[in-house]
Amino acid sequence: MSIATNEHITVEKIKKSKLDQVDFDNLTFGKNFTDYMFECDYKDGKWQNPTIKPYGNLELSPATKVFHYGQAVFEGMKAYKDDQGEVFLFRPEDNFKRINISSKRMAIPEFPREFFFEALHTLVQLDKDWVQPGEGNSLYIRPFAMATEVGVSAAPSDEYKFMIIMAPAQAYYTGDVRVVIAEQFSRSADGGVGFAKAAGNYGAQFYPTNLAREKGFQQVIWTDAKEHKYLEEAGTMNVFFRIGDTLITAPTSDRILDGVTRKSVLKLAEHNGIKAEVRRIQVSELVEAAKNGTLKEIFGAGTAAVISPVSAFSYQETVYDIPKQEDSYAKRFKKELMDIQQNRADDPFGWRYPVA
Amino acid sequence: MSIATNEHITVEKIKKSKLDQVDFDNLTFGKNFTDYMFECDYKDGKWQNPTIKPYGNLELSPATKVFHYGQAVFEGMKAYKDDQGEVFLFRPEDNFKRINISSKRMAIPEFPREFFFEALHTLVQLDKDWVQPGEGNSLYIRPFAMATEVGVSAAPSDEYKFMIIMAPAQAYYTGDVRVVIAEQFSRSADGGVGFAKAAGNYGAQFYPTNLAREKGFQQVIWTDAKEHKYLEEAGTMNVFFRIGDTLITAPTSDRILDGVTRKSVLKLAEHNGIKAEVRRIQVSELVEAAKNGTLKEIFGAGTAAVISPVSAFSYQETVYDIPKQEDSYAKRFKKELMDIQQNRADDPFGWRYPVA
Ligand SMILES: Cc1ncc(COP(=O)(O)O)c(C=O)c1O
Ligand SMILES: Cc1ncc(COP(=O)(O)O)c(C=O)c1O
Repeated sequence: MSIATNEHITVEKIKKSKLDQVDFDNLTFGKNFTDYMFECDYKDGKWQNPTIKPYGNLELSPATKVFHYGQAVFEGMKAYKDDQGEVFLFRPEDNFKRINISSKRMAIPEFPREFFFEALHTLVQLDKDWVQPGEGNSLYIRPFAMATEVGVSAAPSDEYKFMIIMAPAQAYYTGDVRVVIAEQFSRSADGGVGFAKAAGNYGAQFYPTNLAREKGFQQVIWTDAKEHKYLEEAGTMNVFFRIGDTLITAPTSDRILDGVTRKSVLKLAEHNGIKAEVRRIQVSELVEAAKNGTLKEIFGAGTAAVISPVSAFSYQETVYDIPKQEDSYAKRFKKELMDIQQNRADDPFGWRYPVA
Repeated sequence: MSIATNEHITVEKIKKSKLDQVDFDNLTFGKNFTDYMFECDYKDGKWQNPTIKPYGNLELSPATKVFHYGQAVFEGMKAYKDDQGEVFLFRPEDNFKRINISSKRMAIPEFPREFFFEALHTLVQLDKDWVQPGEGNSLYIRPFAMATEVGVSAAPSDEYKFMIIMAPAQAYYTGDVRVVIAEQFSRSADGGVGFAKAAGNYGAQFYPTNLAREKGFQQVIWTDAKEHKYLEEAGTMNVFFRIGDTLITAPTSDRILDGVTRKSVLKLAEHNGIKAEVRRIQVSELVEAAKNGTLKEIFGAGTAAVISPVSAFSYQETVYDIPKQEDSYAKRFKKELMDIQQNRADDPFGWRYPVA
């Protein structure tokens, strides 16, 4: 395999790989990073010096704007290796578009397409041995952009850093997830930044999620900030409800992230002849369905966990258990998605993107 | 002057001051920092190693959580020097309490009172020559806390850094401010983090503020996210409206920062026999008052700018100019506040806090 040193990106080679220090059977998510990282600076009005270099620390002033004003966005995507050793991304075009949508809302200059894709190709090639084949294994890829101007005035930065770091991953969540329906706290509002993968959206969820954890629930399903009446999404997943044999998920809006997994599930549902409705869904409808036995499944959909079945939800001090489903949609979608991602099945929608 | 090396905080001395490199007559806000900074780490469940050291860069992994999840809070306060060379803070207890209120909401461990105040005392003593006396001059003090765990899983950090950096400042805003009343974008929602000085609240405002700037306005006055019907606050200032001779400002809530300047203005109003109402105020009431000539003043109140008179506001494509006021409340409050801050007047409320 020869590394294409293309005209844009400079590559600084490592001296020695860290690969042999990693126990791939006991990975904590997002803790071990590969040998290389990508770094590109925005200065004097343009993105410049795209560089792939040995993964390592940054030196930053304590007055760097990202620390103070949270002007930062990110993406989450994965590379998968098939049994022949070929490596694929999953719908990377969507992540590319979305990080620029996020950036725009956060007043961060958009990142050029060529740099993004060249960086992905070159990085994944260089770190190809970090992608493990096999069920549930992947290389988690984290592109992000952040404000790097030095200064504590509350105004947009005039310098930024765009980076890509990568961490080998096994399955993200283990076991079923119990969720709390938000009744008091909220994640985002109309006219806000909820649709963006803006850094601050995540930190803001930690405290309410901690409160849920203390009561034995792992996640919060957010509701609309106005009335807490409509179900929206979870912290890092869009959410699907199966009532009877109909799948329901909230429409995207400026409060909800337009998830790649969500839209892939909707496509697979269509393909499988499963009725899917994209519409606002009230908490009361969910509770009613749980009570009368028509609520068959709830599951989250997101890159990290792929599909996460929800086993119970709590609302107004009542816990509603969701009985295990024989013919589970969650299971079916998870299998179909992973089969496509890992090149074990046909790819009728052209989602796989060979990268190394 | 002898530096108290108290039992908690370690002080590492500089070799040579940067003081002579600074042009105090031409300061850009928040760009020049003093000789020293304070740094304290949260690890293994406790805040430890409080250290004052030469101001300098941090070395951080690109996977540091603050870059990805915006788990960060800050404060803004000022030190003032009087003509006798004594240095004062202004109501620092309020900033201390508030950073811990912010931290709690952002799932950041609260910072100990002793470290906070010892750090302030020692830092300001060491950097005393950086505080310039004279009208409008101050030393801007920026305490902040941020997530420093290395890892890209979306969960609270288990390590943090608390820092204090300081920058000499002249007046923050120059001239009058023209504002846009928010009709579409929003800053925060009920159940959200608007009441906290959370980093992400600021980055989220940059884009809508840029749009306002393009139309010739410097700031946005945010309205409630539900209906855009009630006036809330500006990006870094609470806002007061004077209709007739009554001062009106929005009540604090989980959407609005409980500003130190705001509550000081309310106290001064009371002291001056000026009628002040803390109540929800509708945009329509403001527009009506502008039309019938009873709107006499709008001004922002915040540490950075102290008091910022607003000269015009825009709403639904109409610009309402606010005529200059002979007997301006804004002017009066600014003078009274600054006289107290800089020890030129009595301090009937005990707001001054001698520090060096
Ligand atoms: C808030 C939020 N919702 C949903 C998702 C799922 O999106 P995707 O399927 O593109 O990973 C994510 C994670 O990326 C997220 O952060
Ligand atoms: C959102 C917001 N509102 C109001 C204020 C004013 O608060 P204070 O008077 O305490 O500086 C600030 C600045 O600190 C702020 O960031």
